[in-house]
Amino acid sequence: MSDITTRFADIVGAGNLLSGDAVPDDYSHDEELTQAPQKPAYVARPATAEEVAQLLATASEEGTPVTARGSGTGLSGAAIPRADGLLISFERMNAVLEVDTTNQVAVVQPGVTLTELDATTIPFGLGYMVHPGEMSSSVGGNVGTNAGGMRAVKYGIARHNVLGLQAVLPTGEIIRTGGKIAKVSTGYDLTQLIVGSEGTLALATEVIVKLYPRLEHSATVLAPFADFDQVMAAVPRVLASGLGPYILEYIDTITMAALVHTQDLELGIPDQIRDSCQAYLVVALENRTAERLDEDVERAGELLAELGAADVYVLEGGSARKLIEAREKAFWTAKAIGADDIIDTVVPRGSMPKFLAAVRELASTAGGAAAGCGHAGDGNVHLAILCKDAEKRKKLMGDIFALAIELGGAISGEHGLGRAKTPYFLKLEDPAKVALMHRIKRSFDPAGILNPDVLFAEP
Amino acid sequence: MSDITTRFADIVGAGNLLSGDAVPDDYSHDEELTQAPQKPAYVARPATAEEVAQLLATASEEGTPVTARGSGTGLSGAAIPRADGLLISFERMNAVLEVDTTNQVAVVQPGVTLTELDATTIPFGLGYMVHPGEMSSSVGGNVGTNAGGMRAVKYGIARHNVLGLQAVLPTGEIIRTGGKIAKVSTGYDLTQLIVGSEGTLALATEVIVKLYPRLEHSATVLAPFADFDQVMAAVPRVLASGLGPYILEYIDTITMAALVHTQDLELGIPDQIRDSCQAYLVVALENRTAERLDEDVERAGELLAELGAADVYVLEGGSARKLIEAREKAFWTAKAIGADDIIDTVVPRGSMPKFLAAVRELASTAGGAAAGCGHAGDGNVHLAILCKDAEKRKKLMGDIFALAIELGGAISGEHGLGRAKTPYFLKLEDPAKVALMHRIKRSFDPAGILNPDVLFAEP
Repeated sequence: MSDITTRFADIVGAGNLLSGDAVPDDYSHDEELTQAPQKPAYVARPATAEEVAQLLATASEEGTPVTARGSGTGLSGAAIPRADGLLISFERMNAVLEVDTTNQVAVVQPGVTLTELDATTIPFGLGYMVHPGEMSSSVGGNVGTNAGGMRAVKYGIARHNVLGLQAVLPTGEIIRTGGKIAKVSTGYDLTQLIVGSEGTLALATEVIVKLYPRLEHSATVLAPFADFDQVMAAVPRVLASGLGPYILEYIDTITMAALVHTQDLELGIPDQIRDSCQAYLVVALENRTAERLDEDVERAGELLAELGAADVYVLEGGSARKLIEAREKAFWTAKAIGADDIIDTVVPRGSMPKFLAAVRELASTAGGAAAGCGHAGDGNVHLAILCKDAEKRKKLMGDIFALAIELGGAISGEHGLGRAKTPYFLKLEDPAKVALMHRIKRSFDPAGILNPDVLFAEP
Repeated sequence: MSDITTRFADIVGAGNLLSGDAVPDDYSHDEELTQAPQKPAYVARPATAEEVAQLLATASEEGTPVTARGSGTGLSGAAIPRADGLLISFERMNAVLEVDTTNQVAVVQPGVTLTELDATTIPFGLGYMVHPGEMSSSVGGNVGTNAGGMRAVKYGIARHNVLGLQAVLPTGEIIRTGGKIAKVSTGYDLTQLIVGSEGTLALATEVIVKLYPRLEHSATVLAPFADFDQVMAAVPRVLASGLGPYILEYIDTITMAALVHTQDLELGIPDQIRDSCQAYLVVALENRTAERLDEDVERAGELLAELGAADVYVLEGGSARKLIEAREKAFWTAKAIGADDIIDTVVPRGSMPKFLAAVRELASTAGGAAAGCGHAGDGNVHLAILCKDAEKRKKLMGDIFALAIELGGAISGEHGLGRAKTPYFLKLEDPAKVALMHRIKRSFDPAGILNPDVLFAEP
């Protein structure tokens, strides 16, 4: 064993330090579609914050690149390690430490999956409302990428639901930020700086998440529209209505057809309407009483009809759940139909019609196609990019991102940049901002060990 | 005129650069109670981001300390300039640039007051929901201090309602962060880093704020409780009920008596109940229909009675408004009754009974008193500290802050540290975090010109 291997093994125990051929393939990738898998030189599975601190202090001394891994469900390649690097897997730090009903928070270790957190909080009538579409994702991963998902339109994104952290700096210092408190004005908000930093600033070893009361009654309204612009025009009206949807999604017809086909959905929509519409709006409502929910569903139906919906379908429990689940699995559907890349560009929601029309034209010019669905209320557009030629695809994606930025948006709303989108970011972002971010990075990570291929072009 | 005076005057025009005796007293203070007023050497009133950029670039070159000022309503002394410094007043940058109903945002200059923003958004049925209790405060000031206020329990704090900024770095670079978008995962969240930084990192020259639909119907329920702990125990139950209050405040009896007296309130509470209760809970509800509001008020009344309220009063329009306004003016009431200092410590809401009992004992031991009210839903306790002896008061406040931190809270929930609370912060905060924050500060502000007495002990 090399000296470094011994040092890492001494920290986590020989059984929790893998190296060389003993490293399983799983640790070489996440769910991103285009990046080559890469096995790390070492995998460490620490059990405590102190072990993480010792690993990072050692890596800083040795100049070893470090990549953090939760469940490996990321879509940007932020969990792909360096060949000469250390992968820190949080699989053993997977305990829900506390469900605090008075303060309505849970304190969890980063390796906890959303499925586990959900199961633990259900008996208390509370829940962590960030559902990024993959319940096997970890809370630590949610922190890294600032996860969003369908419920963000009502409950916000990870950033709004992560109240505090225990985090380890690359120097090996352990800090606590925020707390079981919803507000603080006592120095810089380090919690918010670490959330969304994709493992480049510090590694979270404990996360305090906000819990909301679960409302008992919910229903889903599905409205096909003949015209895409009508869907987009309906969005601010639905939001201004006071109905407070917890899901507000659009699904284009290509994607709906793929979802219906691959997920075996039965939505009861006549062929004639299905064939004549360009997109669907999905509006999910919830309330604390069944009566109010019924009223809201009726009001939503009237409103959508006023706004030009070809028809309005109220989906009953089973089929509503199936549609939402199918929508959550849109990534897998995109993969199944042969998507060459996926993006989750965000634009101001008022710019979605213009953006999507331009994207279709750009894709077509490149000899490809772009189809998708997205968080209409948030302007967060999830697109499957179909374009086999790698060079053309790269140019197409660059053009799409440039357009989004021109419209006041950003490359990614919730997936993050990872290894895959960082080159676009460095090309398109204001150099003054990139330089500032890099100075911030160095203020956390003077040795530059944390995920050096993500957000910046490190040597 | 000195060379520096000429340089600043060339940027903003001679009529917008004051120096020496021409500087009015107003620019020497904010509303903080204990810090000595200090006139700056220069006051500049820029009209554009470009002028702000030139001012900062010049100040960086000359090593001139710079303090930003909005409306001067801050409560921590963050707007008190240095004697040798430049005060940048945003009074001329006071335009609402856009109310965007599709994206439900407003784009404003930092000098816009909340009164002006409110008046501009009312016709659209939308509103900026951060109400820190002083409607003459500026949006720029809200950004600086991460303002909160009573509605934070439903609508969040400034941090959750500021979606993007145009900001000037101390080096003179102008950047744009965030946008008319609710989510982004594309590099570090510079917006969130600048919000709450009290003018120490960058100066906002444009702010994109989130607007919410205004709900038409609202009512306020007032519940006196015999026992303080009962009030605190009621808070999580009200929050878990799904009633979604937009205000959830406690007011102790001393403060209520002062409010009733100084604001001439008539709440219709019999003497017998008033005399036997320790604190009040104020629950404000709103809904899109009058019927639902009535139901919710009834349900809230039943719930509060179950939770031990001595009685429940539903305040009609006029008296409800008066009570909320009186509560918003609690700072002025504290000042009127001779408070020697005020604090807005935050603790996990479950720790409020313990915290407040300990504070009363600490104050009494110091020969003083502490009375107040606060954002019960947020654990944000506003206390008037009555203790004439400056040394004893300093020790008392240090003890109170240390206790709050021990309970998992922080020195300030929304007022910020400013000049007044920075010494406590430097004494009580984890040195590793202070050092990290200082490195972040330097990554923005290499010359150390921005508000050098705030958050850090600069030379």
